[in-house]
Amino acid sequence: MAGVAVPADSDFTLDNLPYGIFQTPGGNGRVGVAIGEHILDLSVVIPDGPFGASSLNPFMAAGPAVWAATRARVVELLRTPDPLSSAALVRQANATMVMPFEVADYVDFYSSLEHATNLGRLFRPGGEALLPNWRHLPVGYHGRAGTVVVSGTPIRRPSGQRLQDGVPVFGPSTRLDFEAEVGFVIGTPSPLGQPVGSGGVPEHVFGVVLVNDWSARDIQAWEYQPLGPFLGKSFATSISPWVVPMAALEGARVAPPAQDPEPLEYLRCKENWGLDLSLEVSINGTVVSRPPFAGVYWTIAQQLAHLTSNGASLRTGDLLASGTVSGPERDQRGSMIELTWNAAEPLPLDDGSTRGFLEDGDEVSIAAVTRSGPRIGFGRVAGAVRP
Amino acid sequence: MAGVAVPADSDFTLDNLPYGIFQTPGGNGRVGVAIGEHILDLSVVIPDGPFGASSLNPFMAAGPAVWAATRARVVELLRTPDPLSSAALVRQANATMVMPFEVADYVDFYSSLEHATNLGRLFRPGGEALLPNWRHLPVGYHGRAGTVVVSGTPIRRPSGQRLQDGVPVFGPSTRLDFEAEVGFVIGTPSPLGQPVGSGGVPEHVFGVVLVNDWSARDIQAWEYQPLGPFLGKSFATSISPWVVPMAALEGARVAPPAQDPEPLEYLRCKENWGLDLSLEVSINGTVVSRPPFAGVYWTIAQQLAHLTSNGASLRTGDLLASGTVSGPERDQRGSMIELTWNAAEPLPLDDGSTRGFLEDGDEVSIAAVTRSGPRIGFGRVAGAVRP
Repeated sequence: MAGVAVPADSDFTLDNLPYGIFQTPGGNGRVGVAIGEHILDLSVVIPDGPFGASSLNPFMAAGPAVWAATRARVVELLRTPDPLSSAALVRQANATMVMPFEVADYVDFYSSLEHATNLGRLFRPGGEALLPNWRHLPVGYHGRAGTVVVSGTPIRRPSGQRLQDGVPVFGPSTRLDFEAEVGFVIGTPSPLGQPVGSGGVPEHVFGVVLVNDWSARDIQAWEYQPLGPFLGKSFATSISPWVVPMAALEGARVAPPAQDPEPLEYLRCKENWGLDLSLEVSINGTVVSRPPFAGVYWTIAQQLAHLTSNGASLRTGDLLASGTVSGPERDQRGSMIELTWNAAEPLPLDDGSTRGFLEDGDEVSIAAVTRSGPRIGFGRVAGAVRP
Repeated sequence: MAGVAVPADSDFTLDNLPYGIFQTPGGNGRVGVAIGEHILDLSVVIPDGPFGASSLNPFMAAGPAVWAATRARVVELLRTPDPLSSAALVRQANATMVMPFEVADYVDFYSSLEHATNLGRLFRPGGEALLPNWRHLPVGYHGRAGTVVVSGTPIRRPSGQRLQDGVPVFGPSTRLDFEAEVGFVIGTPSPLGQPVGSGGVPEHVFGVVLVNDWSARDIQAWEYQPLGPFLGKSFATSISPWVVPMAALEGARVAPPAQDPEPLEYLRCKENWGLDLSLEVSINGTVVSRPPFAGVYWTIAQQLAHLTSNGASLRTGDLLASGTVSGPERDQRGSMIELTWNAAEPLPLDDGSTRGFLEDGDEVSIAAVTRSGPRIGFGRVAGAVRP
């Protein structure tokens, strides 16, 4: 196959073909497709396309017809029996992955029933865990787009204001956490004033990345009422460098969980937009959780319909994250605060140490793979905590 | 003066010199300075500068030394006795103002004590009006950057989910509101991981615009817990087309209100960053409120210190809005929900009609002028409600 060997357990088979921006020493960022342990340089093999750009935005903005034609052309190039030129294929080991796209607006939803229930219990003990609106609409908020960073970027432990013995103090967060999420990236924009509806995924959603929405729980708990999370989240959000196109995930589409009560008309969707992915979260190499994405209550189709229902426009590069993915089992929880129940039940790591929250030097790595259809991997989003 | 007459009551005197992006028929957007009823075309008179761009971002990114040199050069050009060429001066009546800058992240604070107290009473009747964190930190959240629009853009009444007799329904908002705010625009960016501190205003803040943070109170009330306002705000936020540079506001700087308790060290500021501005809100020509900005509790210096205290970076084009400006008097409240106490006390207009909230066809216009130092006007941010 075009001189490219794809290891059997590779995330990046011919069924996947994710897009990213890579650099080689002395070169500018440009668009590549991951295949096995290589990167196909699209700026070389499709020189008349928008692939010399240092972000995916021009390609993502071009819309589904161009996405489909490009994917078909890449498959054709990789299937040719003639070896590709050495200029067209770069070893991933020799390349640096940078931010794959310019983030326009970053919206973080809160769409896992189990996560929302757990956080409600932890943040509002004694109150109703799930607020009355939660089953009627996909709750979400805007995060800071300017601090979305690519996997591998060191995460500096944030300082901030928190309550200590009932008194506000300022200093480094003592409750630094991760959140394992799945993020959908908008390609085709939409005009102001025109809701997209729950049928808008094929037209508007380009692909999927993994997201780690780093969270400082002590800062968040003190600041978040009444206007929501702000500095407890805005110091960094990491994403995986490879954007898996929606076309690669057709085989992973499954029926989403049943919803009770039935949502209002504008949130109903005929198509199945559940995605059967299994996430895997590791701390310093110890797998601590395997959150199942298929069980997330609100789908991307519903999130998209809700987000635009008031006429808000979409821009190329909008990032719609699912919110923390947590399953019903203890080892399926997608954040430390849930896994350790706010440090009350420390988590054992393979080296014999335990963790309540993240310590300086800890590396968190999140991977994912489809559980239905062809095996599609997402690579990883990783980041290490610095003092 | 260079052949330009400046009417005595003009917002745009030689002391002001705000920047904006204007278009003339058949031409591209370019940088202009407002002077009287004219626009000085900087792309003509300073052809080697970043003024042919269709946004202020390249100029704003250049930093305070370039801002100061440009302002000095503009003053020099306007003071010359020789008339400027007709290519250099465009009548405002013959130009269209467009978005002055590309919004990076949009942060909306909640910094008026009177507004936060009023909203707390209205949204959480029976509870404490002011939450425990409010006097310890400038509460804020991220808004939708992609739906910030320039003055004059029609505002389509948003649809959304709200409670009606305790049951969620979907339809056009019945409680559409304005919020009169002052917005600070970031010029010089800052790197991730490096807090800017409360002394960072001169280095980082380029100028000031007026903001109308349109709000659908029924959508907001149902959705906003626990993650804050989302679709109740994200359909549109209007800004004035002229960015008044910080240099024009030196004479308007006053001591901010005394703070009790004294804030933590990182929020203290030696410089006076209160700004003595009087806002004026009109609905269909009837002045309904004159909110005083000097009384706002948290200053831009404190907001900037807080926003970056966790290491969050700044980008050129970040917009930091004050939150609704309300004074202690009834006719100083900066939103309809406060002026009419959630429609319980309808507002009379000059045409004999009354308003609980905004009706289709209503035009809201917000102006502002300094009350200390030379008279500096901000022009207007206006918008009309469409069905």
